[in-house]
Amino acid sequence: MNKFLSNKEVKFLSSLKQKKFRKQYNEFVIEGEKLIFESLNNNQIIKKIVYSKKIKNFDKLRKLSSEKNIPLHLCSEKDSQRISDTKNSQQIFALIKCNDIKELSDIKKHKNEPFIILDGISDPGNMGTILRTCSWFGCYNIIITKECVEIYNPKTVRSGMGAHFHITNIINDDNEKIIKFFKDNQYKIYSASLSGKPIENLKIKDKKWALILGNESKGISKYFEKNSQQIHIKGMGKMESLNVAEAASIVIHYLSKI
Amino acid sequence: MNKFLSNKEVKFLSSLKQKKFRKQYNEFVIEGEKLIFESLNNNQIIKKIVYSKKIKNFDKLRKLSSEKNIPLHLCSEKDSQRISDTKNSQQIFALIKCNDIKELSDIKKHKNEPFIILDGISDPGNMGTILRTCSWFGCYNIIITKECVEIYNPKTVRSGMGAHFHITNIINDDNEKIIKFFKDNQYKIYSASLSGKPIENLKIKDKKWALILGNESKGISKYFEKNSQQIHIKGMGKMESLNVAEAASIVIHYLSKI
Repeated sequence: MNKFLSNKEVKFLSSLKQKKFRKQYNEFVIEGEKLIFESLNNNQIIKKIVYSKKIKNFDKLRKLSSEKNIPLHLCSEKDSQRISDTKNSQQIFALIKCNDIKELSDIKKHKNEPFIILDGISDPGNMGTILRTCSWFGCYNIIITKECVEIYNPKTVRSGMGAHFHITNIINDDNEKIIKFFKDNQYKIYSASLSGKPIENLKIKDKKWALILGNESKGISKYFEKNSQQIHIKGMGKMESLNVAEAASIVIHYLSKI
Repeated sequence: MNKFLSNKEVKFLSSLKQKKFRKQYNEFVIEGEKLIFESLNNNQIIKKIVYSKKIKNFDKLRKLSSEKNIPLHLCSEKDSQRISDTKNSQQIFALIKCNDIKELSDIKKHKNEPFIILDGISDPGNMGTILRTCSWFGCYNIIITKECVEIYNPKTVRSGMGAHFHITNIINDDNEKIIKFFKDNQYKIYSASLSGKPIENLKIKDKKWALILGNESKGISKYFEKNSQQIHIKGMGKMESLNVAEAASIVIHYLSKI
């Protein structure tokens, strides 16, 4: 039988639903067996796994955790609900160390890989979905501007479906330094916009591209707009705009063809 | 000064957050000026508009409502919060008649337009986002299977961003009848799947196509799988799947090129 989680520990895990505590401790909580497997398989630093007695058959997870010396703790169903960010808790959690947020000066070898720049994405679900799409298409360098929702927001982690563990570089830097980095490295800089060149007209030659995705209501910030080639997905007129995660999917799919 | 909303009316509007009451009265509530304008501009049947005194400048909306003889009612901020489906109410609402859900036998003239078939989409946000994408690309015929979340779910309406008012035909029918309809009308039937032909290999000749989008975890149902050409969006391997709304965007963008 595994050790029962103390009330203090329940409180601590529950506190990590708040950004300030995630920032303070540099840790976050994930929920559900699928996400825990994904973190285990992608060499994340897992501090502990917590489960309620409702979780019965998890021998595979138990074995894997024991191989990696990850402590397992039991908690009550009620405590599970306190730890959970959702109405119906999945009754199993892992406490995980956040990955380091880098600056562009830390990125020495980027092997001419694509970069995605999230410029003020405010909806956590959108951010998670975009990360999932990035991972699907093999875009593992993500730049997040200061105006974005936090990447470890529980909703972002949930909709990311494990993408957080695939990203090679999570980067945060000033807008000027971002543009300078890509110009210095001879990257093409595109931004998804409501005007600009139709995407079908683009000729993509290599993987040296960076794509800027803007805020849900304000779009791309002025500085990025001036310093990028705006690309556009042609619509039929009745709808004012596409959701940013949808625009992201279409553009990343298009740019990833090479 | 407009008439104050009675407590009974507040209760009624609030009850429409529940599916059973939406079904019973065939009405739903939308929230926010933007969505209300969208409904006004698309000839929806608007029973009343309700706003709290926090809403000050809405002369344009007031004028448009008066032209269309739509009654305006005041409510308290507290009542506004009772009516709202969100934590932070936008303090302005419209009560709207649901559009009729048709059967395929009602669809006489479809002018060889594309159809989107939602096969058990369970997340209301996904459904709304897909409808928004459909509207962007001019796909106005939507078939919804019985396993789907309700199209007038408040979250679906919210993420649809007005797409509900652009759809020409909302259709509900048996899976067998759906396939028969498209076969009889010589449509190409595609389904977005994790296997099948890469989408880039498809040659699209005309707008006579129907696209099936499956449930978030179970995918396309067996009967549809057997009776459609499965198409696939090539990924890089780390991520198990794309979100269905993202797959929808990529495939609809691709099929809409003609």
